[in-house]
Amino acid sequence: MTAPTTSRRPSTLAPPVRTRARTALSPLAPGHAHISGGFWWTRQDRNRVDALAAGYEQLEASGTLDNFRIAAGTCTGRVKGMIFQDSDVYKWLEAVAHEIGRAEDPLLRSRQEEVTALVAAAQQPDGYLNSVHQLRHGPEERYSDLAWNHELYCYGHLFQAAVAQARSTGKTTLLDVSLRVLDHLVAVFGVGRHEGVPGHPEIEMALVELYRETGRDHALELARFFVDRRGHGYLSSLGHEPTYFSDRVPVREASTVEGHAVRALYLAAGATDLAIEGADIELLAHLRSVFATMLATKTYVTGGMGSRWVGEAYGDPYELSTDHGYAETCAGIAVLQWAWRLLLASGDEQYADVIERTLFNAILPGVSLDGTEFFYVNPLQLRSGAQLTGGTSAVNGRRGWFQCACCPPNVMRTLSSLDQYIATATEGGLQIHQFASGTYTANVGLERLGIEVTTGYPHDGRVVLRVVEAPETVASLSVRIPAWAESALLDAGDGLQEVAGSGVQVLDRRFQIGEEIVLDIDMSPRFVTAPHRVDASRGTVALERGPLVYAIEQADQEGSALVDDALVDPGAPVVEHPIEDLDGVVAVDLTGAAAPEPSAATIDRSWPYAPWTPEPAPAKAHVWRAIPYFAWANRGIGPMRVWLPVISGSR
Amino acid sequence: MTAPTTSRRPSTLAPPVRTRARTALSPLAPGHAHISGGFWWTRQDRNRVDALAAGYEQLEASGTLDNFRIAAGTCTGRVKGMIFQDSDVYKWLEAVAHEIGRAEDPLLRSRQEEVTALVAAAQQPDGYLNSVHQLRHGPEERYSDLAWNHELYCYGHLFQAAVAQARSTGKTTLLDVSLRVLDHLVAVFGVGRHEGVPGHPEIEMALVELYRETGRDHALELARFFVDRRGHGYLSSLGHEPTYFSDRVPVREASTVEGHAVRALYLAAGATDLAIEGADIELLAHLRSVFATMLATKTYVTGGMGSRWVGEAYGDPYELSTDHGYAETCAGIAVLQWAWRLLLASGDEQYADVIERTLFNAILPGVSLDGTEFFYVNPLQLRSGAQLTGGTSAVNGRRGWFQCACCPPNVMRTLSSLDQYIATATEGGLQIHQFASGTYTANVGLERLGIEVTTGYPHDGRVVLRVVEAPETVASLSVRIPAWAESALLDAGDGLQEVAGSGVQVLDRRFQIGEEIVLDIDMSPRFVTAPHRVDASRGTVALERGPLVYAIEQADQEGSALVDDALVDPGAPVVEHPIEDLDGVVAVDLTGAAAPEPSAATIDRSWPYAPWTPEPAPAKAHVWRAIPYFAWANRGIGPMRVWLPVISGSR
Repeated sequence: MTAPTTSRRPSTLAPPVRTRARTALSPLAPGHAHISGGFWWTRQDRNRVDALAAGYEQLEASGTLDNFRIAAGTCTGRVKGMIFQDSDVYKWLEAVAHEIGRAEDPLLRSRQEEVTALVAAAQQPDGYLNSVHQLRHGPEERYSDLAWNHELYCYGHLFQAAVAQARSTGKTTLLDVSLRVLDHLVAVFGVGRHEGVPGHPEIEMALVELYRETGRDHALELARFFVDRRGHGYLSSLGHEPTYFSDRVPVREASTVEGHAVRALYLAAGATDLAIEGADIELLAHLRSVFATMLATKTYVTGGMGSRWVGEAYGDPYELSTDHGYAETCAGIAVLQWAWRLLLASGDEQYADVIERTLFNAILPGVSLDGTEFFYVNPLQLRSGAQLTGGTSAVNGRRGWFQCACCPPNVMRTLSSLDQYIATATEGGLQIHQFASGTYTANVGLERLGIEVTTGYPHDGRVVLRVVEAPETVASLSVRIPAWAESALLDAGDGLQEVAGSGVQVLDRRFQIGEEIVLDIDMSPRFVTAPHRVDASRGTVALERGPLVYAIEQADQEGSALVDDALVDPGAPVVEHPIEDLDGVVAVDLTGAAAPEPSAATIDRSWPYAPWTPEPAPAKAHVWRAIPYFAWANRGIGPMRVWLPVISGSR
Repeated sequence: MTAPTTSRRPSTLAPPVRTRARTALSPLAPGHAHISGGFWWTRQDRNRVDALAAGYEQLEASGTLDNFRIAAGTCTGRVKGMIFQDSDVYKWLEAVAHEIGRAEDPLLRSRQEEVTALVAAAQQPDGYLNSVHQLRHGPEERYSDLAWNHELYCYGHLFQAAVAQARSTGKTTLLDVSLRVLDHLVAVFGVGRHEGVPGHPEIEMALVELYRETGRDHALELARFFVDRRGHGYLSSLGHEPTYFSDRVPVREASTVEGHAVRALYLAAGATDLAIEGADIELLAHLRSVFATMLATKTYVTGGMGSRWVGEAYGDPYELSTDHGYAETCAGIAVLQWAWRLLLASGDEQYADVIERTLFNAILPGVSLDGTEFFYVNPLQLRSGAQLTGGTSAVNGRRGWFQCACCPPNVMRTLSSLDQYIATATEGGLQIHQFASGTYTANVGLERLGIEVTTGYPHDGRVVLRVVEAPETVASLSVRIPAWAESALLDAGDGLQEVAGSGVQVLDRRFQIGEEIVLDIDMSPRFVTAPHRVDASRGTVALERGPLVYAIEQADQEGSALVDDALVDPGAPVVEHPIEDLDGVVAVDLTGAAAPEPSAATIDRSWPYAPWTPEPAPAKAHVWRAIPYFAWANRGIGPMRVWLPVISGSR
């Protein structure tokens, strides 16, 4: 076996190519990806400045940091919160590490050191670490309830934070804690020892990452043990069947994603890491097939994952309720992580298309424009008269934190590591997958190809790529042409020319510093329909513009007509209006009508289901204004819908 | 205060008129309602013979009867099951009491006495009785967790069983147990004492029934205390907000039903009883308005109640998912109980229409044709490829019992008491609300008006009413003309004549023994549509025939086309086929088409949402066979749907 390298790798979320591993693309080297302006930079800046500060306060207020202090014996008090609450700290620490990697900050640095020390102090002499479990249960209960106690899940987040911290700061405090955990786990789990699997996957991809960072073979072997053991009905508890835990069939035999969406996707991402490390082409092909089936049958138009509230789970194929959908923010983050690994492994640009859709429409809606409030659940419709329910419902508006606070710090670490999802490298060049103003550099032999991107994307389709570093030799620069684009023009120095087809545009040549390549993507608004088996979206269209899925929100509508009664004519022209509101988006006005609002008289009738007639119902002409879905609920909470009923006889 | 009468009343489910109370209609007197043949008799017979025997075995197998034995100290063992498991026994006892009232049976009688003795033996000296609570908790924990411990809910079912038993057998063992419970409750609950309210309403209507049977004012007062106290957020527990418990706003201020459907409906039924007893016209009008809003905004076409799995709850207005709906069988039973009380109080025949729809389409689907297996959840669609989930999902098919076994014995007591929902009396005559072969008699002065009904309903629309007892004076006979009927003919002795409008047809005259009145209701199949705000049913129709909602089930379809891909043309003729299968129903063949089944090639495409085009999608002509929804899943479990997508351009 080739000795693993231990060089720094750019990101915990970005598995690099290893000697044994085979991937088509590699993440950029550390420091080679910088978002420096535009849309995503604004989101990152609010995350860095406001969300991380608010997150620190929430960790204090919720008792999450105190749990570590109490476990370490440095303060007294009563343990608080969920059994997996430690993971909130680890996700926040990972985000802080990424941010310090992006730019130094004394306050972030001191909080990083303070919190890291708290974690280290709570670790038990034999390596075990879970502050809540230590305070609630005796040592004899360790790993006795893997379905719910989430000890392994928390380790996963610990390892990811530790790797990110080591890479960005060079400090190994958290990595040392992680390696002590690893030694402890290797002593506990394995064939003939504890043969259980984690109730919530996460540790699998984290163990691979730990292996990549430290070269510890045990980490890779343990990840493989957990993935291979899974799928035999070990996990079944509290009314949840193995399906819920992605433990009904082994990964290699599963034909689709099922059960709890985040569990299913974290497991798939970890299995993909193992396929990469083992150069397991068969497993990779199988995972790609499962991903394709997931897209075709269980994915919202937003890229959102999981339609059922019960079990935060995938529904049956095509069961994609819009008015009571779930689409947890964390599930969007999870599919991003899986798609990224498949993109690296395969080089297939369709995964970059999914990443784009997911980032803008499944993850970004999970955070307010000011960066500090979060949706746990992302339905595609909110009605007038919606009833207040549990704490995670969108009807409450975004919130600063949750009792189960998985989503907020997960968004934080995603935004803080976003630079690393924009571009990749091969031996011969650079691939631009996402359009974000910034600088992206690939090593080409001993030289570099560096590209500065400037764009008003996602609101504007013009992307300027200026060469800022160029090798003396021929290099390759490729740019994704989004699958949604009806047309695109490219000026590679010889004038704007229509790009044939979507997918990827590759330029192989000797680049000159200062030269500009311009991509101009057609951003005309377009209407899309759902597959006919998606019953919840029958007779409706969704509006998209560029990479953004749109919604109509009550706040933008004139007059008293409610979006509940909206009808649109997708055959009629639309009008685009750049507006300053909502940090500047392009609003789109749609020709349509309003169906009659149910009246008191209607309600007084005894029975609401009426005989079918071939004539369209009466409706009054109305113009509906649409805005990007991610921006909804930033002006208070109110009725909203993504899927827009089509006026009968639209042509 | 007028001394309450203590005469026998016909049913625990049927509140009679009391001296102080004001109702438009009264239940028939004991022995005055007998279903003796036809559709419902078959259902009742299987319930009586097979379901009650199977239920007894299930009560043994589940440890439910043992819980009482252990609590009484007559056997040892470990308490089993849900905290409210006693209620399963009470519901079964109530069903047995109704059956003994219908006809004597030595086996039922001996089991009734055996189980009644078990219950009585477990009661504690101070009157407290809850076998599971007694075995799991100390006396100091009584009523300490009203949200979940269901002690009051169980008492409710005990009281109802006791009243039914006293009425049908004259034996008061269970009634004496209930009165000891009542004395105990009066000592514990009340202003200045324990001021809590039950987590699950049920005791309210049972207390009123106990009052009606025994004349104990305390029972009525306690019911009023519980209803009046409710709605101030007392109940909030385990992530459930007061909304879930119908405890967010007081009954008199609630504008709609919300939260857990069975809780909301049992509370409303109990409040209606109090409105009746208190002659509280204002409260009654308010409850009627809430009922109307519920019908208009939160009711499935089947009459099913509650669309959300989380909390077994009502969704937002018009949130009526078909592919992941809930529509618990018990919620159908609960709305039947509420509608019955409103029918008695108001005499408004629309409540009889709702009762009919609910019986056939929301309750009956909950039980197999052989009477012994049950659905807990009644979705309006099951897809091919549906994923196995929790134990109550319809995807598992009907089951003999459940871990939470509320539904099976609730169906049993409903079917066994069904005779009492068919007709009512006024001082001047008889009202026929439902069409079931049998004999129904009203007291008219000191004489009687007795009608023998013969009908093939619900498959055939001809109803023959033969006078078998007639008073010497003028009497009134009214017959409901169903609201769904497009036309109906009535022959009241002078030839068949078109009935003007729906609602009720009243004959005031001197009736002759032997004379026949014939009602002939148009049973032509008809297509209905949902209100436009019911997004889940957009672009679809449902087929109805007579009082039955239809469904297409895979088992009836020729060829390989899946019901998932069904399209129908509601403007084209349909063909009716009486069949012998499924105990004899009328199948209906529909002109339509099959949309292309998603192919592997489709799934391999990267993204399933396609640009909108004005042209209809290609589809292949196909005939779909529909059967009554209640009869689905009696030939194995497979794809089914009630709402049928309409072919584009249907005329």
